[in-house]
Amino acid sequence: MRSKETITERFKVLQDSICSSLEQLDGRSTFHEDLWARDNDGGGGRSRVITNGNLIEKGGVNFSAVHGDLPEKIQNALGFGPSTFYATGVSIVLHPKNPWVPIIHMNVRYFETEGKEGDESTYWFGGGIDLTPHYVTADSGKFIHTKLKEVCDQTDAKYYPKFKKWADDYFFIKHRDETRGVGGIFYDHLNESKEQKSFDELWAFHQGVGEAFVPIYKHYADLHRNKPYTEENLHWQRVRRGRYVEFNLVWDRGTKFGLDTNGRTESILMSMPPQADWLYDYKPDESTPEGESLKWLKKDIDWLADA
Amino acid sequence: MRSKETITERFKVLQDSICSSLEQLDGRSTFHEDLWARDNDGGGGRSRVITNGNLIEKGGVNFSAVHGDLPEKIQNALGFGPSTFYATGVSIVLHPKNPWVPIIHMNVRYFETEGKEGDESTYWFGGGIDLTPHYVTADSGKFIHTKLKEVCDQTDAKYYPKFKKWADDYFFIKHRDETRGVGGIFYDHLNESKEQKSFDELWAFHQGVGEAFVPIYKHYADLHRNKPYTEENLHWQRVRRGRYVEFNLVWDRGTKFGLDTNGRTESILMSMPPQADWLYDYKPDESTPEGESLKWLKKDIDWLADA
Repeated sequence: MRSKETITERFKVLQDSICSSLEQLDGRSTFHEDLWARDNDGGGGRSRVITNGNLIEKGGVNFSAVHGDLPEKIQNALGFGPSTFYATGVSIVLHPKNPWVPIIHMNVRYFETEGKEGDESTYWFGGGIDLTPHYVTADSGKFIHTKLKEVCDQTDAKYYPKFKKWADDYFFIKHRDETRGVGGIFYDHLNESKEQKSFDELWAFHQGVGEAFVPIYKHYADLHRNKPYTEENLHWQRVRRGRYVEFNLVWDRGTKFGLDTNGRTESILMSMPPQADWLYDYKPDESTPEGESLKWLKKDIDWLADA
Repeated sequence: MRSKETITERFKVLQDSICSSLEQLDGRSTFHEDLWARDNDGGGGRSRVITNGNLIEKGGVNFSAVHGDLPEKIQNALGFGPSTFYATGVSIVLHPKNPWVPIIHMNVRYFETEGKEGDESTYWFGGGIDLTPHYVTADSGKFIHTKLKEVCDQTDAKYYPKFKKWADDYFFIKHRDETRGVGGIFYDHLNESKEQKSFDELWAFHQGVGEAFVPIYKHYADLHRNKPYTEENLHWQRVRRGRYVEFNLVWDRGTKFGLDTNGRTESILMSMPPQADWLYDYKPDESTPEGESLKWLKKDIDWLADA
């Protein structure tokens, strides 16, 4: 049963549950919460940030639920007349302390519009999880892709290949000709008429994605968090964090949309790493773990294939 | 006399002269040069980068001259039919080692288009210099604005106020509601029919801007380069460098255009600082030099007014 109040409530519960799991996983730091409201329109959010942890150097787990008149720019892009909108979701970016632990990102959102002039109302789900290891090997993508395929297959066998490709195409740093990381899944505009599924089925899928986040991150965190690292590894981490900045500020539609429409800057830019480096024309030797990593930053890699 | 060959040659001479002055000023590092050519279209450039100097931690002084078919997107934006273009210029960004020395940016460019279907050809000059001190006080903008007003006034008394305002509006970080620094001048689309001046007069103005660069930078460098600094000052420098990244990747039209049209990424992103920090919702105390600096990051400050 479609109800924006229920979905909003469930996103809050998801935020709570993820924050509590991450605090436990981190073992040192806890989340700092900021409640905020939109100045001129409706709604607001709960931004939660964790810093200087045992595991997480800087991370954010944000919930928001905002509503108001749909900006004209978006009306036009969607081919809608004058409408109101309601948007709610949870967004996460975690930058780990240890360079062997990957950066992870999740977003699950729900969007609803209602025509002001008797036009029909519509809604959709969008979201995904993707992983950005600083160091990439043939194995890096295996666990996340196995897990996300399981989640997708429970709803539709066509989802994983479709949403995996969508992530490859979306999380692509065009001006570097490299993917942001090993990808994951990305989907948008899922609704019952387009997908021939009930609202409840789609919500169950979406909820499944949200619930897969902690197990996926825990796997990578536990695997790598105690691996010793050098000053050189930290330097490479900062270089790759620079690429993360480039993707988010140059190509990420969500970031650009938020900054363009007076979203809460500090909540949007919680995705920024604590520190990033830029070197002119830096090309690590191909035989090093750094050079090896670059070879895996390509689209259309089948991370589930046996080595 | 209008001649793109002459202008191109003079931009190369300007690049040479600025690089040589900066090497002398730095006293330690020298420029590393990369020659590059465009893959599928005409032209190329001379990128020059200096790192780990006494004065300059990371900086670039780039010359390029490129030509080809005007991309359809730009044709439409300019209201032109199918055209060829020729673009040449010099771009500079310098990130100093000492946080008391400002970041400086200059761009001088010349653009020419020629209609393929018998449409008239046109050209224009664009450019400017602007200054981004990490620490800003009432005095920070005085020297650069005095100098740029002198250059402008030699051609037209209306230029300085107009181009000063243009810089305030252009170098504005909308999502932070702050200017990038103390501004300077910015101008675009200057040509003889619009300005009621000869090509030679406009070229002389443009050349004057290019020649003002070294004296302006030398003033600030000499004034601040030996001032002792603390770990806290370096931290603030990295925070402000983060804002520089935000402006360039989110709002700078030149950067966005370059990355969007397969420009040479390493030359475009030579503007990135060596290192940048992001802290969630960092607000320095108003009574500190850091907090004081933020008060001056506003549009429409008259830096020439007596204190």
